[in-house]
Amino acid sequence: MKLLITGGAGFLGARLARTLLARGTLAGRAIDRLVLADLVPPPPDLAADARVQARTGALLEQCAALADEGPDGVFHLASAVSSECEDDFELGLRSNLDTTRALLDALRRRTEAGHAAPRFVFASSVAVFGSDPALPLPPVVRDDTLPTPQSSYGVHKFVCEQLVADYTRKGYIDGRSARLMTVSVRPGKPNAAASSFLSGIIREPLAGQDAVCPVPPQTQVAIASPARTIDGLIAVFEAERERFGGRTALNLPALTVRVQDMLDALAEVAGPAALARVRFEPDAAIARIVGGWPSRFESARTQRLGLAPDPDVRSIVLQYVHEHGMALPAHTR
Amino acid sequence: MKLLITGGAGFLGARLARTLLARGTLAGRAIDRLVLADLVPPPPDLAADARVQARTGALLEQCAALADEGPDGVFHLASAVSSECEDDFELGLRSNLDTTRALLDALRRRTEAGHAAPRFVFASSVAVFGSDPALPLPPVVRDDTLPTPQSSYGVHKFVCEQLVADYTRKGYIDGRSARLMTVSVRPGKPNAAASSFLSGIIREPLAGQDAVCPVPPQTQVAIASPARTIDGLIAVFEAERERFGGRTALNLPALTVRVQDMLDALAEVAGPAALARVRFEPDAAIARIVGGWPSRFESARTQRLGLAPDPDVRSIVLQYVHEHGMALPAHTR
Repeated sequence: MKLLITGGAGFLGARLARTLLARGTLAGRAIDRLVLADLVPPPPDLAADARVQARTGALLEQCAALADEGPDGVFHLASAVSSECEDDFELGLRSNLDTTRALLDALRRRTEAGHAAPRFVFASSVAVFGSDPALPLPPVVRDDTLPTPQSSYGVHKFVCEQLVADYTRKGYIDGRSARLMTVSVRPGKPNAAASSFLSGIIREPLAGQDAVCPVPPQTQVAIASPARTIDGLIAVFEAERERFGGRTALNLPALTVRVQDMLDALAEVAGPAALARVRFEPDAAIARIVGGWPSRFESARTQRLGLAPDPDVRSIVLQYVHEHGMALPAHTR
Repeated sequence: MKLLITGGAGFLGARLARTLLARGTLAGRAIDRLVLADLVPPPPDLAADARVQARTGALLEQCAALADEGPDGVFHLASAVSSECEDDFELGLRSNLDTTRALLDALRRRTEAGHAAPRFVFASSVAVFGSDPALPLPPVVRDDTLPTPQSSYGVHKFVCEQLVADYTRKGYIDGRSARLMTVSVRPGKPNAAASSFLSGIIREPLAGQDAVCPVPPQTQVAIASPARTIDGLIAVFEAERERFGGRTALNLPALTVRVQDMLDALAEVAGPAALARVRFEPDAAIARIVGGWPSRFESARTQRLGLAPDPDVRSIVLQYVHEHGMALPAHTR
C-alpha cells in the first residue's frame, strides 16, 4: 500500500514514519511506499529507506500532485502551531484551513474519478477545548463535550474535524479525526509553546541542564508519551469503521498528573541532582493558559479501541531515557 | 447607522428589513441606510424605501465592495439551503463556506485598516444538530450540547459559527451566531425541504387547498413563527456583549409541538373544513429525517436575553392569518 504523511519530517511525523517502516504493514497490508511531505526534507535515516519518498515544499501547492499519486492512506499531521497562528492570522488560515481543504478536495476529485476512497487520519488537538466565558469547561472532558476553542489553532483544528466528517459522510474519504494530547517528553529544544515546559522540566535535567517551571507544582495537566501518541494514530487508522464509532473526533487517551508528579518521577529515575536543576519561576500568563486546558478525560470510545493512557509518569520518563541512550544513576538502571 | 443584510431579498431577509425599517432604529441608533444583498432584487415595497439600496448578484464577488461601504452592522443570512448542498457539494462549499469566509476577511481588512469592528449576526441553523452513529442526540438540547451535523449544510453552518467566534475573539468583528429553528408558517409554495410540510399543513388548508402530511401525527417537532425568529435575530444583534455571553452560538427559542397539535390549532382557527384538507401519506424518508431533528431545547442563555418561544400553535396560525388578511369562520374572528 501507498501511504502519505503530511508533516512527515516533523517530530511526530518522522516518529510515525519510523514506526510504520519498522512494522512493515498497516491494517494488514504491506507498506510499499511512504511519501513524506513537509517544508523540510525528512531526517537521513528515513530518507535512506528505499520505501520512502520525500516531497519537500509548501503543502498547499502540492495537494493535487500528492492526491494524484493515489495514496491508500493518509496521515494529515502538517500544521502551523498555536503561537504561529496567534501571531499571524493569515498564515494560520492558509496553513491549517486552506491546506486541509485543498488536500480534502484533491482526494475527493480522485474518488469522484472512480478510485477507492483513501483512509484518512486527521491529527486534531486537545487545543479544541477551551473555556468560553459563557460555557466553562466541565471538570471531566467526555466523548460528547462541546469544544469551544479559544485560539485560532483550536478553531482551525475543530473546523477541519467537521470537514473530515462531511467528506467521509459523502464517501470521498474514509476519515477519522483524533485529538492529540500534550506530548511529553518531546526531544529537542524549548520552544515558544505554553506547553514547552512540560517536556523541558524532564528533558533538560536529564541532559544536565537547568529548567524553569512556570506554574505551581499542584497544576494538573494531561499528557501522553510520544509512543502512546503514535500508537493512538495507528489504532485510529486501523480501526474498522463501525468500531471507530461515528464521524465525531476522538480524544486520544491522556494521563492526568500534577506537575509535582512529574518532578517526583524525574527524581526517582535520575536522582536528586536532576531534580535540583528545576527551579520555579511563576509566569502568570503561562499559568493562566495551562490552567485553561482540560486535564481529565473519560472516553468510552478510546476504551472500545483498546487505547489507554501511559500507566504513570515514571514510564514516560524512562521511555525518553531509553530512547536517547542515556546513562542513569545505578539504582534505576 | 448603515446596515447590511445578506440574503436580504429572501423571505427572512425581507421580513427583517421591513421590521428594521418600521422600527427606524437598532441598538439605539437611527438606521440611515439598509443595504440588501441578494441574487435577486428586493421586493418592490423595500426597493421603494429611500433608505434601501440593493446589491444584486453573487455574494462571493461582492464581499470586498460590501465591506468597503463600511456597514456598522451586518446580518449574514445568505445561504444555499440544505437540499442544494446535498445535491451539489461544490455549490454548498462555495455559497456557504467560501462566501462567509470572504465576507469575514473583507470586514477584517477594514477593521485592520482602523475602522470600528462591525457588529455581525450570523444566521446559523438547528441543522447543526444531528445524530452521529456513535453520539446520538440527547432528549433535550442545551446550551452546551455538542452538534454533530449530518448534512453538508449543517457542517457549513457549524464551521462558520467557529470562524465568527474566532474573528470576534481577535476583534475583527463583534460577532454573534444564532441558530434559527424551523420556521412555520412560511408563506409561498411548498419546496423540496424535508420541513416544507410543517408550513404546508397550515398554509395550504387556510388557502382552501389540499395538503399532505408525510409523518405520523405524534411526531414531535420544534418550530418558531417568522415574527419570533426575526425578534430573535434583532435581540441577538442588540445584546450587550457580556449579556450575550461568550462566543458560542445560541439556540434561538423553539416551541415543542406534536404535528397533531398543529392540526388541532388549524381546526380551532379555521374550522373542520380546513382540517379536512390535510391527508396523511406516510413518507419513510421524510419521517426519518424529521425524526432525527431535535425537538426539545432548554437555554439559560436565551432566557437571559428575554427571548421565549411562541406561546402556542394557535398564535402561530393566527399570526399567518392576520398577516395575510385572511377571512376566518365567524367564531374565531
